[in-house]
Amino acid sequence: MAVPREEIARREERVREGLRAAGLDAALVVEASGLVYLTGAVADAHLLVPAEGPPVALVRRGLERIRDEAPWLDARPLASLRAIPPLLDGLGCRRLGLELDVLPVARYRRLEALLEGVELADAAPVLAEARAVKSPWEIERCREAADQLAAAFAAAPELVATCATDLEVQIELERVLRRAGHQGPLRFRGLNGQMLYGTVLGGPDGAVAPWSDTPLGGPGVNATVGKGPGGWRLRPGDAVTVDLVGASEGYAADATRTLFRGDPDPRLAEALAACEAILADLEGMMVPGTPAGSLYDRGLELAEAAGFGAAWMGAGPARVRFVGHGIGLEINELPFLAHGLDRPFQEGNVIAVEPKLVFPGLGAVGVEDTYVVRAGGPERLTRG
Amino acid sequence: MAVPREEIARREERVREGLRAAGLDAALVVEASGLVYLTGAVADAHLLVPAEGPPVALVRRGLERIRDEAPWLDARPLASLRAIPPLLDGLGCRRLGLELDVLPVARYRRLEALLEGVELADAAPVLAEARAVKSPWEIERCREAADQLAAAFAAAPELVATCATDLEVQIELERVLRRAGHQGPLRFRGLNGQMLYGTVLGGPDGAVAPWSDTPLGGPGVNATVGKGPGGWRLRPGDAVTVDLVGASEGYAADATRTLFRGDPDPRLAEALAACEAILADLEGMMVPGTPAGSLYDRGLELAEAAGFGAAWMGAGPARVRFVGHGIGLEINELPFLAHGLDRPFQEGNVIAVEPKLVFPGLGAVGVEDTYVVRAGGPERLTRG
Repeated sequence: MAVPREEIARREERVREGLRAAGLDAALVVEASGLVYLTGAVADAHLLVPAEGPPVALVRRGLERIRDEAPWLDARPLASLRAIPPLLDGLGCRRLGLELDVLPVARYRRLEALLEGVELADAAPVLAEARAVKSPWEIERCREAADQLAAAFAAAPELVATCATDLEVQIELERVLRRAGHQGPLRFRGLNGQMLYGTVLGGPDGAVAPWSDTPLGGPGVNATVGKGPGGWRLRPGDAVTVDLVGASEGYAADATRTLFRGDPDPRLAEALAACEAILADLEGMMVPGTPAGSLYDRGLELAEAAGFGAAWMGAGPARVRFVGHGIGLEINELPFLAHGLDRPFQEGNVIAVEPKLVFPGLGAVGVEDTYVVRAGGPERLTRG
Repeated sequence: MAVPREEIARREERVREGLRAAGLDAALVVEASGLVYLTGAVADAHLLVPAEGPPVALVRRGLERIRDEAPWLDARPLASLRAIPPLLDGLGCRRLGLELDVLPVARYRRLEALLEGVELADAAPVLAEARAVKSPWEIERCREAADQLAAAFAAAPELVATCATDLEVQIELERVLRRAGHQGPLRFRGLNGQMLYGTVLGGPDGAVAPWSDTPLGGPGVNATVGKGPGGWRLRPGDAVTVDLVGASEGYAADATRTLFRGDPDPRLAEALAACEAILADLEGMMVPGTPAGSLYDRGLELAEAAGFGAAWMGAGPARVRFVGHGIGLEINELPFLAHGLDRPFQEGNVIAVEPKLVFPGLGAVGVEDTYVVRAGGPERLTRG
């Protein structure tokens, strides 16, 4: 499915507006999700996006693919980075934005050596802002991703009841997701960012502290992975958190359901009910204008009132200070629903909100859904 | 399985030797595979490795995990990057190596602002060189990864004969790999580097040109993934390339088998026989001292002699100029078997060698195995 021309035109215009507001003459995009956002396809390419005028793609590998997906785009083969300076000269570009949050130093230095006289600045905030508000086309893709999750959640109860370990549940659910159209790879921005379909965690392993910025961690199959299921043998009463990410045409949706093996542990069942009540309460705040971080604070307040303050979003030093995140071509987009962040929600933000409670030695529970922020209240994309 | 202390000690010493040879007083490691190499576990950490003396891990998240895996390591909680300068002062560190091939500019600049008076240099080559020669312990892990591939290759014939599409074959083989102990996530160094279990490609989709630095590409489930199977409906005579990566305790093995649906297309069958003959020939060169790039040149010579020069390692501009790569904690390690690279093989290099032939509109064929370079000739790890 090629991204419609008018959809890409909208995205280009959002980025151009941002560049002008930031005083940048152009951005040079090399990271995969940025290329996908502005062309519909991934390639080994430098995409030059001027603040005025159409983009130019300089493609080292994957030229045919870019041309197929974006026939309107000025896409040229790139034999050498030396093709870039004349292009910038032609545009009169004096201030060029790069993706400094992900661009490796070695690549930056090669560009810097070539681009004497051009000031290099950061375009990452411009690109992130442009992507924070989704179009109806993008929201439909997130909805398709949510449909994949519904298929997995339909299969989960029987798997949780019968599989020997949480890892087996994960393996079978990955297959269900793939057969429901999941694209496979996901993108998680930043060095060491990696995510594989999501995470199923059973029993006390749900409370194994994460090394990445997530509320739940898990032991992982081994210490070199260090997250996700480690093969916990499911026992009666164990909570099993099923936190999965669907992905369609690059766009993701993220949701969590907590199931129990047999009769639930009573304390965990009570905690899960608290998470569900918290999420229902937070839904009322998912309207344009709400400071994103305030949902974290409200959730903490409600968790404390329910007697679960110490378990809120992780235990002890492992606690995270956010209750959700924007999601789209990457799993960690704007807005970030973190304590202290006052950025107001905008119509068209797509956010995953995930109140979770963690009890070391016992397990974790939680619920998560992906929503579109709308003036009249949130639209929930994930279901099942 | 924790990495034995003596194994980590060997790795530390290799890195320290490299640092001294490069005139670096220390390296600061933050990328996941580097952390795993030197501690056995992944964390959100800054690992300071002095050229003289023991490493210190400053851990933002995942401290308990690091302490469990590496109880001998001086691992401390990191509340702020401001803890780093006094530590460097204490070591008398004047020249600090960073992983400039992967470290994002924004992170570099935060360190640079803190470390006035310290010269920042590149430690990436030192780390890559240290990892290029594997220990017996590391080779055993690669062998376990190879065993996972053997399980997949045993299941492949029936799947290729019966599944409707190449994507279905891929999905089922991913499950076989997982159930055989595959860890899930893999590491492919560099911006946009991503690999998910490997790639099954059927019929003409095997010849869809890659955007990444691989001989085979494939359409991918969609253009935002842009590699791997796209759901080609398998027809009698189609070649199906099954290129898979196993992974155990972080260590990978990479192998390709080409199967056919029904009776093989005669030209592709002939091409596959040529690939097998080329790999058998190249095995004779896998001894210490052989320039790594010469295997590419020899393969090309043999492919031309067999009448397949135009198909060698990709068609037209999509051709790659390498015939293999080192493999370990990442899929793309040293040595790189690329044209023009004279780096001689060393005893203990683990390399994946992959002669492949690509025929646009028809498909691709090839074979790949992972070997240990040994004085008496290579030891093949992959089988089946």
